[in-house]
Formats: sequence, C-alpha cells, structure tokens
Amino acid sequence: MKEANVMANENEFTKWYIQTIQQGELMDYTPVRGCIAFKPDGYEIWEHIQQEMDRHFKETGHRNAYFPMLIPESFFEKEKDHIEGFSPELPWVTEAAGEVLEERLALRPTSETMIGHLYSNWINSYRDLPLLLNQWSNVFRWEKKTLPFIRTSEFLWQEGHTAHECEEEARQETFQMLEIYKNVIENFLAIPVYDGTKTPSERFAGAVDTFSVEAMMKDGKAVQAGTSHYLGTKFAEAFDIKYLSRENKHSYAHTTSWGTSTRLIGSVIMVHGDDKGLVLPPTIAPVQVVLIPVGPVKKNPQVLEKLEEMFAELKRNGVRVRLDDSDQSPGFKFNKWEQKGAALQIQFGPRDHQNGNFVLKSRDEEDKQTFEITELLSVVEEQLEAMQKRLFQKAKSFRDQNSHLDIDTLEQLKQHIKKSQETDAVPGWILAGWCGAETCEQKIKDETKFTSRNIPFNAITKKSHCISCGEKAAHTVWFARAY
Amino acid sequence: MKEANVMANENEFTKWYIQTIQQGELMDYTPVRGCIAFKPDGYEIWEHIQQEMDRHFKETGHRNAYFPMLIPESFFEKEKDHIEGFSPELPWVTEAAGEVLEERLALRPTSETMIGHLYSNWINSYRDLPLLLNQWSNVFRWEKKTLPFIRTSEFLWQEGHTAHECEEEARQETFQMLEIYKNVIENFLAIPVYDGTKTPSERFAGAVDTFSVEAMMKDGKAVQAGTSHYLGTKFAEAFDIKYLSRENKHSYAHTTSWGTSTRLIGSVIMVHGDDKGLVLPPTIAPVQVVLIPVGPVKKNPQVLEKLEEMFAELKRNGVRVRLDDSDQSPGFKFNKWEQKGAALQIQFGPRDHQNGNFVLKSRDEEDKQTFEITELLSVVEEQLEAMQKRLFQKAKSFRDQNSHLDIDTLEQLKQHIKKSQETDAVPGWILAGWCGAETCEQKIKDETKFTSRNIPFNAITKKSHCISCGEKAAHTVWFARAY
Ligand SMILES: [Zn+2]
Ligand SMILES: [Zn+2]
Repeated sequence: MKEANVMANENEFTKWYIQTIQQGELMDYTPVRGCIAFKPDGYEIWEHIQQEMDRHFKETGHRNAYFPMLIPESFFEKEKDHIEGFSPELPWVTEAAGEVLEERLALRPTSETMIGHLYSNWINSYRDLPLLLNQWSNVFRWEKKTLPFIRTSEFLWQEGHTAHECEEEARQETFQMLEIYKNVIENFLAIPVYDGTKTPSERFAGAVDTFSVEAMMKDGKAVQAGTSHYLGTKFAEAFDIKYLSRENKHSYAHTTSWGTSTRLIGSVIMVHGDDKGLVLPPTIAPVQVVLIPVGPVKKNPQVLEKLEEMFAELKRNGVRVRLDDSDQSPGFKFNKWEQKGAALQIQFGPRDHQNGNFVLKSRDEEDKQTFEITELLSVVEEQLEAMQKRLFQKAKSFRDQNSHLDIDTLEQLKQHIKKSQETDAVPGWILAGWCGAETCEQKIKDETKFTSRNIPFNAITKKSHCISCGEKAAHTVWFARAY
Repeated sequence: MKEANVMANENEFTKWYIQTIQQGELMDYTPVRGCIAFKPDGYEIWEHIQQEMDRHFKETGHRNAYFPMLIPESFFEKEKDHIEGFSPELPWVTEAAGEVLEERLALRPTSETMIGHLYSNWINSYRDLPLLLNQWSNVFRWEKKTLPFIRTSEFLWQEGHTAHECEEEARQETFQMLEIYKNVIENFLAIPVYDGTKTPSERFAGAVDTFSVEAMMKDGKAVQAGTSHYLGTKFAEAFDIKYLSRENKHSYAHTTSWGTSTRLIGSVIMVHGDDKGLVLPPTIAPVQVVLIPVGPVKKNPQVLEKLEEMFAELKRNGVRVRLDDSDQSPGFKFNKWEQKGAALQIQFGPRDHQNGNFVLKSRDEEDKQTFEITELLSVVEEQLEAMQKRLFQKAKSFRDQNSHLDIDTLEQLKQHIKKSQETDAVPGWILAGWCGAETCEQKIKDETKFTSRNIPFNAITKKSHCISCGEKAAHTVWFARAY
C-alpha cells in the first residue's frame, strides 16, 4: 500500500482497513448479516477502553445497571420522533418457546424507552434525583451497509441515562459526559476530536439537543466518536417520569443520554494504522512490548535466559509484554508484530547480551535505538509514553492539515474535491457558514456527499455567509463525508 | 419473618426472597416476561463477581472474546442433542428492518454452535491449540417459571469455550475451571459447594460429561452454581473443528465449555440473607462500611467533621464506605442499611467523639463492639475479614446439618420429608446409592421431587445399594429439590 493513494481512494481504503483488522486478528466475519466476532485482541482493546471510560463514569458519581434487551413495540410508540428514527432498523422477536408472541419485542437499538418506563417507577421525589446510571451492553441496528466495528448489526456500547430536577443541571451533565469522551478519546486513544452541537437533522431521534465529538480518519472522512443528548422532558412526558419537587409540585424530570461504542476500535485503526498494519496507542495495545531473540540464539542459551528475565521484570511492573521464542525467523517476527500493532519491539541477540544492550524499535518510527539493559524498565515506560504523545500529535497534524477554513461557496467545495481527487489527496473537512436551513444542508449533501458534523463549541474562525445559499450564516459548521 | 418457618415453607421462602431483593434494591420487574432490570446494587454485586472470576480466567491463560448473539436456526440442527435440549426455550428473530428473514435467528441460549462454526476457521494446526476463550454476555432461555436472578428469560453470564489436542488435556481443563468456580464461590461468595459429576439425565445438551458445583440454599433446595462440560469431539464433528496434528494427521479437536451466571447473585441472597434482609459477603457488598451519626449531632458539628475524616481515611484505603448524613433518624438508618446488606455499621455520636471511640456492628452479629478511633482502618479490615469467614462457616454448618447420609430407601426419604414438614425443618439433601438406571432417578423425582444433583468427587461415605430399586449401587449421589 502507498498511503497517499489508499487514503484518497474509497475502495482502496476500505480494502486496506479490512485487511488490517483481519491480519491484525481483531475480528472475523460470521454468517449472520452484519454481525462480527471480536477476536481476543479486538476484544481486549474494548476492555481497555471500557475500564478507562468506566473509571471516569464512576469518579463522576455514575453507577452501572442492566436493563432488558427486549423492548415491547408499544414502548417505542410512546415517543414519536424516537420510533420514526429507529423503526427502519429494528430486528423483532415474534416467537418464543414455540409460541407466537402477543406483542412483538424489539432488540434494543438504545434503551431510552425501557429505562424511561423504569425511571417512572424509581423516581418519586427530588430526593431520588439526580439519577445517574450507565449500562454496558450489546445493541442492534439492522443497517443496510455494514463495516466491521464502524457499523454493524450488533455492536457493543455503553449508554448513560440520567434524570435531573432542572434543565440547567441536565445540560451540565451532557457537557460533562461529552468532556469525558473528549478526554478519553484524545488522551487514551490519541485521537483529536472537535466537540460541538449537532444540527437538527443530525440529532438523536427524540433529543432536544445532541452534542458530539467528531474524529477525522486517514481517508479524511469523519466518525462520530461519541454523542451526548439533552432530551428535555420529552421522554419524561412519554413515560411519565415525574417527581415531587422541593416546592411540593409534580414536575417532569429532565433527562439525558450519552454513548460511545465499539466503533471507537474502528476509529483507532483508521486514525493510526499504516501500510504495515495496526498501529495502536500503548494504552490499549494488547502487546505493549514484544521481546524478539535475534542472531544465533540456540548456541547462546544465556540470551534466552536474559530475555526471560527481561520479560519477568516488565510483566512484574504491569507492562503487557510477550516473549516470542517461537521457531520462526526474526524477520518473520518483526513483520508479524508490526502487523499486530505491538507498540515496542525489543530485539536482543548474543552481541547485545555481551554489550549489556538491547535494541528498541517503536511501532510508529523507522529508526531503532540502543539502550542499556539496566535501564530496561524506565526506557520502556518512557518510550511507551513518548509513542502515545507522538501518535496524538501526528493525528492532530494530519487533521489540522486537512481541516479547510477557506472554502466559502459550494462551487469552491466542488473544485476542492475535484482537485483532491486529481492530486491523490484527501478532501478532508471544511469549516463553513450555514444559514440554518435544512434545505441548504441537503443541497450540500446531494451535490458533494459532505454532511454537517457539528457546530464546534470553539470554532477556529467564524463564517459570515451560508456556503449553500450565500445568505447570512447563523452557524459555523464542520462539513465532511462521514461513516 | 421467623427463619425456621420461612425456610421450610416454599411459598413463604419465595415471598421472603423477592421482598429481600426488592427492599435491598437489587432488581425490579419489567413488562417483558421473565426479564428483570438489575438496579445499581444488584449490578455492582455482579461486577465484583465478574472481576474476581475474570482474574482467575486470565491467570490460567484464558482471554475474552465476543461472539454474535443471533444464531442461525441451521446451526442448532447440526448437533442433535443440543437442539433437542434447547429448542423448547428459544426466542426467535423472524423480521428485521421491515423484512421477513429467510432463516430464523435464535437469541443465543449458549454459544457452542456459533463458536464451533468460528473455531473451525480459526483452528488449523496443533499450533493453534489449546484455544482458550471466554465470553461475558447476555443469554436467553424462555422458561415457563421464572424467579429473579435464579431463572430469568434473559440473564448475564460467562461462557468459556476451549479446544484441545486430546481428551486428557480437555478433561484437565474442565476440572481446572470447576476448581476455579469452587474457589471463587467458596472463598469470595462464602458459599460452600459440593463438586461432582452430573448423571446423564442432568447433563448439558450435547456434552459427554458435565461436572458441577452445587450449593444449598436456606430452604434446603439446591442451586447448580457452576458447570463445566467435556464435549468430546461431538461439536468438533458437527462443526468440522479439525487440526493437523503433530503427527501430520487431520484430527478432531476435543472441546470444553463452562459457565456461571447471575444466578450466583440469587444464591448469595438465599444462602446468607436473614429476616432483616440482605446479608452480603464483604467481598461483594456494595457498602462495606456505613458511617451513621447518632445522638445530638447538630449541636456537635465536630462529630460530623470527624465522621468525614473517617470516611476519607477508609475510602482512601479502598474500603467501599458510605456516610449516611441524611435527615432520617438513626434507627431508620440502622434498619435501612441492614436491609441493604451493608457489611459493617459504625455508629458515632458526641460521647464517642469525646472518648475517642466508635461503635461497630457487623451485619451478621447481634452485639456491638467499641473500638478506638485511632485503630479505625485495621479494625475495619479485620472485621470485614472475620465476617467473610463467619458467613462461610455458618453456611457450611447449615449445609452439613442438612446433608443427610443415613437415608437408604425411598420409604425412609418419604418419612424424612414428612417429618421435616411436621417439624418446620428443611428436608435438605441426601447422599444415596444409585444403580445407574434413569428409571430409578425418575421414580425418586416423581415420588419426592428430589433430583440427582451430582456424583461427588469426594463422597463423605460410599453407598452400597440403590435407594430406589435396592440393587447394587453404581454411584453415590447427592439428591435434593433444586431450583
Ligand atoms: Zn443557506
Ligand atoms: Zn436402581
């Protein structure tokens, strides 16, 4: 693969992506349409993300709970926008234990309805508020076009659901959770994101406001990496979530929901991966350090002994380390562990042993470095941290280079896209003015496939005119092709 | 509730159980048949169990993965015994995204078939073996009679699935995992279990051998707390899981599976709970220590200040501690936190503050004790550990008292059951001889509702004659009424 070509070509990029996650042994296809199996390395990445997210959720007073996966059809009908948004994608259980069910049961696409029903029982007084729960679970959306991790019929996610006394507190919660997403995605997954408000057409079905963090992939397309919704009292009214207020009045609770999913795994690959395969931030890499014996090892048993010592020292200190003492050649191993995204390779042979050195190569760098064995642990810790920072900086540079601020008309955008194609460049994102009319958003989409990503909280610059109609801009918006 | 009565009366015991888990805020019912919601305290218990199990799985070389929840109907048909066992309980997805599916998809009751299909792709050579995976997930069994945590239409569990070169290694794996279950259930959940082999009629559908750990509830009934199956080459043959052996021959892999579920939560309640509500082993109690101010606190602000210090010290040291400074009366709080199963209550008022003391009461003991504040952390740690041990010993004494070794005929069993009813005692379990005929097992069940639990690995005593037909006993078996 030549990166520039692949990035700019949709088919090539998809081919590269699928090859990368398969050779990296993250997933496999299954005979069930759009449902993948997570292999251990793929699932372990998710476990690391889960632990980090969960820690932040608990630190901010949230607790986990679990709600039924099957949702009665009548529940969906209680919130008009919600059923309109989700009904085209629902799988239905219609039979169980040999009998046809009286009411169809949907496989949850999200749990606002079931949770709304239960919260109406659990919340009676302002003393029960705020109610701050989260669920880790599988969900289902029967989508036409699927792509492993990014868009699958079944996926894994977390969904937070909170209820509050007033709008202000509920809105604060949505911002707090979006900030946690931004923090984890940037600092833990090394993916820079733009945070902002979704336009009405891109809102969650049933939300008053949807906020998102959006990430740029290496092909210049956007992934909505996390969303946080202020639901107003819409679900409270639909499910009768009322509480007796401090003023002794029956009031509807203000609710929120927020979610991130296994599409974060796909995003990590599409942001950091390269032509050799997986590149994973050390925080989530199943293998942070792989030790590879080189040179005539069999004649020098003390080399392997020393490697086992090094392995033990790293493992004892919490490093996810592997010693590859298999029969394969060193060259084979170098490739294999690059493909699988091991963060650091340590190469060690008889001469290194003699000199008291080891050779280290970071997955994201070309050059090898030599260090003293006595410094093993501190070198590894420093190098992992340095790699984590480099990955973020590299992704941020790429994103900044491909965030275009100077495209102000639809004609300019079309020219820009055309030029990108001709020069094997990615079209990236544009920051553009928008008058607020859905027709303008639609026109941009129809003519360029660019959709609104979000209205950034902190726009780099403010735009005065709508890119589509030329009228006065009400908002400055990120537009991009998106997954 | 008077414990003796409740234990011996099925309806009373069930009523007590449901009241206990509802007042303890562990769960709630939902409108979907047999599906419950796990409230935060109920789910937190599961999180603690998960963490402990998962640690043992990983220490023994297992990794987590995730497989699709929907399983094509044709998969089930590949293993005759398996479909016979599970088809009566399956819910089916027949429609998705507005279209009728060509093939029905079952909600997984367990994943041997899907995993068998994938393992046939993932396993090619002896180098790929052993394959040691585990999955944490939701599963579905549409049962007629449900009871929260113990038997629900949807439940949470872990299912391990491994593949090996030979029978011996696979059997070792099944024993290793059963031993882990026994270890966690006894040492972490403080529930003593009998480990042994299931009789053929009680085997997992499709297994060559099923092994189980069985626990006695306070009503004398049994819960199968964990199972481990040696599947032979049955699933390997059904799904073509073949590998090229060290001798260069195509051979079927020997597979195992093993599982524990959220019924462990139900078991904990039914083993340790009492007439005041939940009693939870400190290892899993969401609240290990609750600090309760007593006496005229408002006039003595330094009492609350000191409590906050104590709270901070315990929290800093990893104790799950709560300070209940709400408006309610101390008496209300004592009851509330007993009901919710807080392991230790620390009561602290102005006089205690003056004396530099605090008063401590363990959930499972009647008496309070007084300690010096300077000893807070070490006292708490000691008391939590002591309570953990007491709960196990208490449960073990109860089980041993109700494990009957001297019942050798069906007539004696009937007399025993009758006498138990008359004396408000639980009938408990009996260790009895069995000739090996399924008709004898069936007769015992028909006439006494006692079913075979398992053939213990280490029988306390060996029986010479079948309790049912009087012929020579082939096995010594635990019989009991079971959930
Ligand atoms: Zn416009
Ligand atoms: Zn017999």
